[in-house]
Amino acid sequence: MSKALPKRSENYSEWYNEIVKRADLAENSAVRGCMVIKPYGYAIWEKMQRALDDMFKATGHQNAYFPLFVPKSFLEKEEEHAEGFAKECAVVTHYRLKANPDGKGLIVDPNAKLEEELIVRPTSEAVIWNTYKNWIQSWRDLPLLINQWCNIVRWEMRTRLFLRTTEFLWQEGHTAHATENEAIEEAERMLEVYATFAENWIGLPVILGLKTPNERFAGAIETYCIEAMMQDGKALQAGTSHFLGQNFAKAFDVKFVNKENQLEFAWATSWGVTTRMIGALIMAHSDDNGLVLPPKLAPVQVVIIPIYKTPEDLATISEKVNPLFEELKAAGISVKYDDSEHQRSGWKFAEYELRGVPVRLGIGMRDLENGTVEVARRDTLSKESKPIDGIVQHVRLLLDEIQENIYNKALKFREENTFMVDTWDQFKEQIEKGGFLMAHWDGTAETEAAIKEETKATIRCIPLLSAEMAGKCVYSGKDSAKRVVFARAY
Amino acid sequence: MSKALPKRSENYSEWYNEIVKRADLAENSAVRGCMVIKPYGYAIWEKMQRALDDMFKATGHQNAYFPLFVPKSFLEKEEEHAEGFAKECAVVTHYRLKANPDGKGLIVDPNAKLEEELIVRPTSEAVIWNTYKNWIQSWRDLPLLINQWCNIVRWEMRTRLFLRTTEFLWQEGHTAHATENEAIEEAERMLEVYATFAENWIGLPVILGLKTPNERFAGAIETYCIEAMMQDGKALQAGTSHFLGQNFAKAFDVKFVNKENQLEFAWATSWGVTTRMIGALIMAHSDDNGLVLPPKLAPVQVVIIPIYKTPEDLATISEKVNPLFEELKAAGISVKYDDSEHQRSGWKFAEYELRGVPVRLGIGMRDLENGTVEVARRDTLSKESKPIDGIVQHVRLLLDEIQENIYNKALKFREENTFMVDTWDQFKEQIEKGGFLMAHWDGTAETEAAIKEETKATIRCIPLLSAEMAGKCVYSGKDSAKRVVFARAY
Repeated sequence: MSKALPKRSENYSEWYNEIVKRADLAENSAVRGCMVIKPYGYAIWEKMQRALDDMFKATGHQNAYFPLFVPKSFLEKEEEHAEGFAKECAVVTHYRLKANPDGKGLIVDPNAKLEEELIVRPTSEAVIWNTYKNWIQSWRDLPLLINQWCNIVRWEMRTRLFLRTTEFLWQEGHTAHATENEAIEEAERMLEVYATFAENWIGLPVILGLKTPNERFAGAIETYCIEAMMQDGKALQAGTSHFLGQNFAKAFDVKFVNKENQLEFAWATSWGVTTRMIGALIMAHSDDNGLVLPPKLAPVQVVIIPIYKTPEDLATISEKVNPLFEELKAAGISVKYDDSEHQRSGWKFAEYELRGVPVRLGIGMRDLENGTVEVARRDTLSKESKPIDGIVQHVRLLLDEIQENIYNKALKFREENTFMVDTWDQFKEQIEKGGFLMAHWDGTAETEAAIKEETKATIRCIPLLSAEMAGKCVYSGKDSAKRVVFARAY
Repeated sequence: MSKALPKRSENYSEWYNEIVKRADLAENSAVRGCMVIKPYGYAIWEKMQRALDDMFKATGHQNAYFPLFVPKSFLEKEEEHAEGFAKECAVVTHYRLKANPDGKGLIVDPNAKLEEELIVRPTSEAVIWNTYKNWIQSWRDLPLLINQWCNIVRWEMRTRLFLRTTEFLWQEGHTAHATENEAIEEAERMLEVYATFAENWIGLPVILGLKTPNERFAGAIETYCIEAMMQDGKALQAGTSHFLGQNFAKAFDVKFVNKENQLEFAWATSWGVTTRMIGALIMAHSDDNGLVLPPKLAPVQVVIIPIYKTPEDLATISEKVNPLFEELKAAGISVKYDDSEHQRSGWKFAEYELRGVPVRLGIGMRDLENGTVEVARRDTLSKESKPIDGIVQHVRLLLDEIQENIYNKALKFREENTFMVDTWDQFKEQIEKGGFLMAHWDGTAETEAAIKEETKATIRCIPLLSAEMAGKCVYSGKDSAKRVVFARAY
């Protein structure tokens, strides 16, 4: 057996890296900051995609595909947007290589310089709104509800598997509406979709909120977000939804004739979640034994492991397991029977634990005699012997229970690590210990910046759902309308 | 109603472009050679993806994701491969823009030049085999059966929506095997998968064959392909599967310990199909009235159109249609009820015909009285009145019938346009009329090149399934072992 994982309490960061690596989720590629998503990690992403895509379609959206490249002049059109993305983008300047005349290998062909540089999309507002110009003429063309699944490149300086990579995968919704209200409703609707997905699929409780002006998406009027707490008490932004007002419609001249027969700029939203959610999933639920997967996103929900000494025993066990395997599959459960002979069952137990498979069924010769099976759950690490009759129904309920338990555990953790903070001393002391600090803020960018400067804490969001309750800013002592969420963040 | 489509017989090329545009499948973007795949076109791609992905998984493959960028030095490692792709690639040279000090807008920041240029992947053998180096140590790690769905960039000079675009979407399988035979079997297995997909889903009869050395994928030992005939008699390559031998294993030093405990280079395959298949689908089946979709890939399989004069009539019709709609949906049929009031039913009839919806159900007041519905099929343009009782079962069988008919029609067309050609005069005459020319070839690159030079015909493939039958080369008169397929091609 391989070396134990680092413990969360000792080196949380190393613990995370090791889980990603040992559970075979992803690895760094030879290309700076870009990751290889390995089959097991990608299978989680596929499950996420399927669930989200169904939800997008159920809310009236259609998928489409827009170009990878953004001409430089497009990016320039919306000023804040340009400023936000220009500093970290991959720039295509040439379209051909040629044999090196001075030696071996290939060089960039200087004769193949592009007239206008192309940016590898850091987000697609510019390309999409340039296209929408031709799609939107009348109020009848609205709302336009489109989503795209694709890859994105942002030249990040410090990268971390899943959490921050130069290239990542995401979906980006881009919608156009006839009125401001409809666009705001859409941005809020998609935030709700994200929250539902985070809570019901990832098992990740989230706070729905608004970003401060300083933390808004470049070009947005309002940025909504969902914020989650990781097990080290740091915050992770798991999804954002933007109300873009008429900024992009104005930048790309997208006008429509409204019902009153007047020309008007269209109203926009955009919203996205990324492969970062896999990082959130890992950090929120896993333990010192490895990955813990929520059953709804687990590529393998149940693994069956035979415990045997001789090939004859294995044959006897397999005879019993095969119909059980089929029955589980027929019940819609994703199941694997690991009867490989070159690894011992003890090794397999540890391996599937590390890989976070929610339920393990162990079957040995004694079990066959007794008509039982050993049922182990990954979330609590508990085991019990169960009659093999009715086991499918038991497993089905158990998967639901695990899904719920994972969420409740994360919710309890968040609640235990959320603090009402009313004085600056208290703030400074608590922030070192981690967690969410619910504190009053005077609403100014100066105070926000000063707090970040002194404590590395940022305002994660202004919660949407908390009651308004006036107070005094924890830093400046000035009036504040409500508490906001402060934390250190990924 | 809008202007009629150009006729196939008059301007095939314009006819194709207009269908793509008017059926809302795709359009050219502002980025040179890159297309926007519109929701209706993308929905076809999604159906293709789902069917293929299921087939890949059923044959033991897993999905993963590798970086978009290929470092220049990686591309250089396999010489033929480098030569094949260097001439048409997008090159990233910088990672930042900055404000233009001399005026408005953004410029490339000269201080942000990459040490090594990155190529936007024209295919992923190099990046993937560089990764496999760390994944493959022992025969136990093999076979490695991986597929990737992603975007690809090749700087094509002449582009055409779906058929040839600078950026396109595809899947690329990359497998590693312990023996040469296993790799060859894999390459052939995936060709069979592609052929099954083309025939059973797209309704496109294909010839399975081998490419000549000259037409092989850059870096392959053998390239297998499926070739289809379009309605203008030209050929279209719809998918390829490559046996790569040990070329990439040697270039990237991927060795494994075999069962005999000896170090050996791994054997490779790669295989891919692209959004080009949508072009093939359009060109193979559509008619002068517009798109004709095979039911298995149609985003909407059945459209129901109410025929009415007053809002009261519409309400009465809808009352009858709503349960029918639900019944069709419950039967797994993708159905749309178009009760929009701002377009007349005549306009709708033409519109859904243009968009290729396989079955149209028309229901008017007279039908309600008679308990009937008008059933129109897109492939034959025929209509008949049917009792509304049992209509779901009728539609289900009809969709199967249409799927089959589309295939048979295309097969008949191909057979009628395939010619045994034995003399050079006959060859030159027939190639002007189009179609597949089955002719003997002496097996030399010189003859192949001369024929291409004189007639623009290429050897589409050396068919796998035809009986060996010796003869004399149609061009040189030299000995030939079997006939090959010549055609002009997309």
